[in-house]
Amino acid sequence: MVIVLKADRNLEKTAALKKRLRERGFELHESKGETSRLIGLVGDTSVLDIDDLLAIDDVVEDVKRIQEPYKKANRKINPENTVIEVAGTKIGDGNFQVIAGPCSVETEEQITEVANDVKASGAHLLRGGAFKPRTSPYSFQGLESDGLKLLLAAKKNTGLPIVTEIMTPEHLDLFEDVDMVQVGARNMQNFQLLKALGKIDKPVLLKRGLANTLEELVMSAEYIMAGGNDKVILCERGIRTFETSMRNTLDISAVPMLKKMTHLPVIIDPSHAAGIRWMVEPLAMAAIAVGADGLMIEVHNDPENALCDGAQSLRPEQFDKLMKKIEGAVEFFGKTMN
Amino acid sequence: MVIVLKADRNLEKTAALKKRLRERGFELHESKGETSRLIGLVGDTSVLDIDDLLAIDDVVEDVKRIQEPYKKANRKINPENTVIEVAGTKIGDGNFQVIAGPCSVETEEQITEVANDVKASGAHLLRGGAFKPRTSPYSFQGLESDGLKLLLAAKKNTGLPIVTEIMTPEHLDLFEDVDMVQVGARNMQNFQLLKALGKIDKPVLLKRGLANTLEELVMSAEYIMAGGNDKVILCERGIRTFETSMRNTLDISAVPMLKKMTHLPVIIDPSHAAGIRWMVEPLAMAAIAVGADGLMIEVHNDPENALCDGAQSLRPEQFDKLMKKIEGAVEFFGKTMN
Amino acid sequence: MVIVLKADRNLEKTAALKKRLRERGFELHESKGETSRLIGLVGDTSVLDIDDLLAIDDVVEDVKRIQEPYKKANRKINPENTVIEVAGTKIGDGNFQVIAGPCSVETEEQITEVANDVKASGAHLLRGGAFKPRTSPYSFQGLESDGLKLLLAAKKNTGLPIVTEIMTPEHLDLFEDVDMVQVGARNMQNFQLLKALGKIDKPVLLKRGLANTLEELVMSAEYIMAGGNDKVILCERGIRTFETSMRNTLDISAVPMLKKMTHLPVIIDPSHAAGIRWMVEPLAMAAIAVGADGLMIEVHNDPENALCDGAQSLRPEQFDKLMKKIEGAVEFFGKTMN
Amino acid sequence: MVIVLKADRNLEKTAALKKRLRERGFELHESKGETSRLIGLVGDTSVLDIDDLLAIDDVVEDVKRIQEPYKKANRKINPENTVIEVAGTKIGDGNFQVIAGPCSVETEEQITEVANDVKASGAHLLRGGAFKPRTSPYSFQGLESDGLKLLLAAKKNTGLPIVTEIMTPEHLDLFEDVDMVQVGARNMQNFQLLKALGKIDKPVLLKRGLANTLEELVMSAEYIMAGGNDKVILCERGIRTFETSMRNTLDISAVPMLKKMTHLPVIIDPSHAAGIRWMVEPLAMAAIAVGADGLMIEVHNDPENALCDGAQSLRPEQFDKLMKKIEGAVEFFGKTMN
Repeated sequence: MVIVLKADRNLEKTAALKKRLRERGFELHESKGETSRLIGLVGDTSVLDIDDLLAIDDVVEDVKRIQEPYKKANRKINPENTVIEVAGTKIGDGNFQVIAGPCSVETEEQITEVANDVKASGAHLLRGGAFKPRTSPYSFQGLESDGLKLLLAAKKNTGLPIVTEIMTPEHLDLFEDVDMVQVGARNMQNFQLLKALGKIDKPVLLKRGLANTLEELVMSAEYIMAGGNDKVILCERGIRTFETSMRNTLDISAVPMLKKMTHLPVIIDPSHAAGIRWMVEPLAMAAIAVGADGLMIEVHNDPENALCDGAQSLRPEQFDKLMKKIEGAVEFFGKTMN
Repeated sequence: MVIVLKADRNLEKTAALKKRLRERGFELHESKGETSRLIGLVGDTSVLDIDDLLAIDDVVEDVKRIQEPYKKANRKINPENTVIEVAGTKIGDGNFQVIAGPCSVETEEQITEVANDVKASGAHLLRGGAFKPRTSPYSFQGLESDGLKLLLAAKKNTGLPIVTEIMTPEHLDLFEDVDMVQVGARNMQNFQLLKALGKIDKPVLLKRGLANTLEELVMSAEYIMAGGNDKVILCERGIRTFETSMRNTLDISAVPMLKKMTHLPVIIDPSHAAGIRWMVEPLAMAAIAVGADGLMIEVHNDPENALCDGAQSLRPEQFDKLMKKIEGAVEFFGKTMN
Repeated sequence: MVIVLKADRNLEKTAALKKRLRERGFELHESKGETSRLIGLVGDTSVLDIDDLLAIDDVVEDVKRIQEPYKKANRKINPENTVIEVAGTKIGDGNFQVIAGPCSVETEEQITEVANDVKASGAHLLRGGAFKPRTSPYSFQGLESDGLKLLLAAKKNTGLPIVTEIMTPEHLDLFEDVDMVQVGARNMQNFQLLKALGKIDKPVLLKRGLANTLEELVMSAEYIMAGGNDKVILCERGIRTFETSMRNTLDISAVPMLKKMTHLPVIIDPSHAAGIRWMVEPLAMAAIAVGADGLMIEVHNDPENALCDGAQSLRPEQFDKLMKKIEGAVEFFGKTMN
Repeated sequence: MVIVLKADRNLEKTAALKKRLRERGFELHESKGETSRLIGLVGDTSVLDIDDLLAIDDVVEDVKRIQEPYKKANRKINPENTVIEVAGTKIGDGNFQVIAGPCSVETEEQITEVANDVKASGAHLLRGGAFKPRTSPYSFQGLESDGLKLLLAAKKNTGLPIVTEIMTPEHLDLFEDVDMVQVGARNMQNFQLLKALGKIDKPVLLKRGLANTLEELVMSAEYIMAGGNDKVILCERGIRTFETSMRNTLDISAVPMLKKMTHLPVIIDPSHAAGIRWMVEPLAMAAIAVGADGLMIEVHNDPENALCDGAQSLRPEQFDKLMKKIEGAVEFFGKTMN
């Protein structure tokens, strides 16, 4: 961390700041310029908040962070790729997986049919929403605990591990038999939820928020890991920009950048990224090519009557064709789907 | 709502869609063009989700919403300005209020001193964070329930009503004696929390998310109001853009636009918007000039040692000077402060 | 186009508006709702400006465009993929090309060496900047006309067609022997330049602006095409978002979306998108996988001493290795590099 | 400037870099940490490009700029507020001016009538577009040189100095009698145009680009100033964000921030910022309150039939009422309009 001091700084307060930093165990390296004066701080600066230093505004002009503020998720500290196992299915370090299923669980028939279809097509994990975050209070909010039961029944019938979204720590008990818990984009910085998930022994699929930086995504993973749960998979699902022709803008570069920053697996959700059915295939191909460890794809047996996100859901026969292309591309780019 | 049909649409499915819409009680007005064909939908379209219609993609090319998707918050339905009372202090419709206090409650001395100071300067409500949403798990997370107790003690000592942030529905019991519950930017779409707040009889200060549209902010207010709690105050606190010289970009136009969309009071938080102490004054003046109903300002007795957001906190003597300017400007622009 | 009328509109002005629209040849289809009233407009609405209608604000509440405002670039009007020939090298409709070379032409040795290297590695077109748009007046501005001469010499020596950026219509004469003229991101809406390029008979590589929508990009292509020059290639090179870990955010979805909107070839510039050398390869792979018609890649024989954009330039040996991967991926995804 | 070296850097290249920097006259201050190593660079770093240093990627991990890259525009170098005179009308350092007129010059009657109206209402400068940058080639492009002639006639008749937009350096001769030349948002980084304007002796009104940072805006001013023309006025006119209810998002904080960064006058264009007539007044009030040095407001005698931007243009009687409020607010906030 580098602290830039003001040219006309209060000397007494400057001395006090230096003393305080030394007392907290930092080594100080100073360098003087004509128009600026820098202090290089050596030590574990992840405990320092830039804003706290900026608050001393008759001394400090600016603060630049040099070291990353994350530790457990940092690839520098743990250089090997992490592999996450979800009920025996490996994700990461060459193991590529497809998570498929409907936006929301609607009926027993629907989830069973879709589960059987995606399994037959080669998906290894089943997704399905029971608790749904919707912008409008007048939209379908999910079947809630009944939806979870239907999803667990589909798991029993097909043997597919299940992934579903949690919206509040109060619901954790209900998720006992869920194989991987998903944190949605709108809850990426629901810190009470992240803290609760740090205390369970279950993989967490953490989606990037609509307008969150990659560093913030990693810091949210760090919340879970700092609590004791190392099993975090990151998911890019499109960010919000000025472009209006698609629901979101898929930040494909997030994959290589997150892999440089962290050792965690990174998957892509092309369905939410574009919000348009016909765009799922090209984005899925791009995701594999760029190095993602998996895909999360919405599939619905009757998208025209889906209670949510039908516009971006593939029909089972479309998904089946796509899976053949995915298998080919995954192999071409050197990963395995087992 | 206008549905644009595809030129090469499936005629059978088109007929089915029309039938379904008529059965749901909508009146259909069709108009044909050479290259497009429109259906105008008449009825309460707030129950329709655009994406559900887009899902029928061998019929529907595009859907444009004409009516607003919100009802209880809509000024068209309730044209008069709403006044919210917080423990007897009125906000809205000409009543301007200043909420002041530290980012977080740290010690009894700190919160008591700041509370007395801001009261002496003319603030009508006291803010102070007990539960703090922080990007890093290694940053100070607030004193939590102990912080709430200190805040309630400060309320007792000064008589100032208090405003503090809630982060999860599980904490609601702790907030019984809090006068106004704040929903922070990161929780604007924490729908479980919004639903819980819809069931209490207490004013809610709802902050706009970092990258949420004004319509989404109003929809979140609608969640609370649909649950039965009409006492919602909206707060603009800066949005996330590409600009890096300030922490956030204050969207000053949000005030007149929200007042056109809704009948709810709208306040501005210039401290979080800029994240820089010296910018609080000009932004506060702009907020009054543009028509806001109040301000939320961070004040700390020792910002250099604040545990959070010191960089944007005013010292009590700075706040005192600012209050004199605020009083003048509020009067000049035709509002009253108590 | 749909015009939403106000509930309390001025009836006389409404009648005048309808009369005026009918006189301009539009057919009007009206539909009444309880809270809104719509007019569907049938005819060539690309000549209408939404803002002109909104200006009649005691009549018009809102205007929604249904038809695209572009014609010559519109795939609906010209469904076949356009192929652009640059000095005999075909781009589009299955023909994939790599444009490679340095950010800026620096010396004869440099451009000759890089040109020979990229040719040997299989690139079909040579890029190199002579006129450089730089944020700072104190940065290197390019060798200007001398740079163009060196680039033309490299063309003569290697036989590679050349692509270089034009910054102002005044320079057009200098570009007579250039094979493809590039319009940079900052000039995407330099309309005087676009008009001038509409009058020449030479392919134009049009880069998307940092914060321009895809529709605006297509409208800028339409400027060139409306002037009489149909040879436009679109280029996505990253957009500006809130993310700071990369120079820009590559909008990979732009490729399939632009191909749906238009019939023009679309290429990707992964070097500018990321601004980081090690990210060029994964983004290039993603570009091929998503369906792009080509790549524009920066290569420099001595990036550490490059006068511009060295951080994102590949060394010739890195480019050579990348070309082998590109060739494999292009074949895998069913295109040819001839 | 601080250079962060890689832990596993190439030692030979590191020595070469240090040597090169010392040869260019920089003083180097090094500080070692456990996981990082910094070099503080002392000297005029505005001549260094961060990307050039990042290019040496087996040595350099990151580069942080400490000093601003602008000099002539920098308030640290020139602490006094600059006053710009436009044909005798002073702008800046307490002198507040209103520039008013139509988006585009349409007819002699129109511009004469509007000019007389805005003069009568107290405006000190007349705006009017002759060359119009329009997104669509099918929209009205301005009367071009004929428009300029009409504007000059209006200047003669009313005595008001005129401000109008230039789109390309080729047109400079036509602007000889124009009092202040405007650079529009889309041309903020048209560097050939900025260079040409650096050589004339005439005030330049430089508008911020839709997605340009404040530092980039100041760097564009620096282009003009580095060429020898110190008469630059900065204009904030709204930026592009994800918000869709307004045409642009007015960045009101830009005023105090630009005034901290530079000594140049800063004005606001509320008409383009919101794109909606009824929002001009509250934004104008906010602009005055926040400390702007002037306003640019669109006025049209018949906005419903305006050839451009009618939706945001005030009618003369609306402008007249607004001017009375502006006068009051300018006086209240301690500036003079004379």
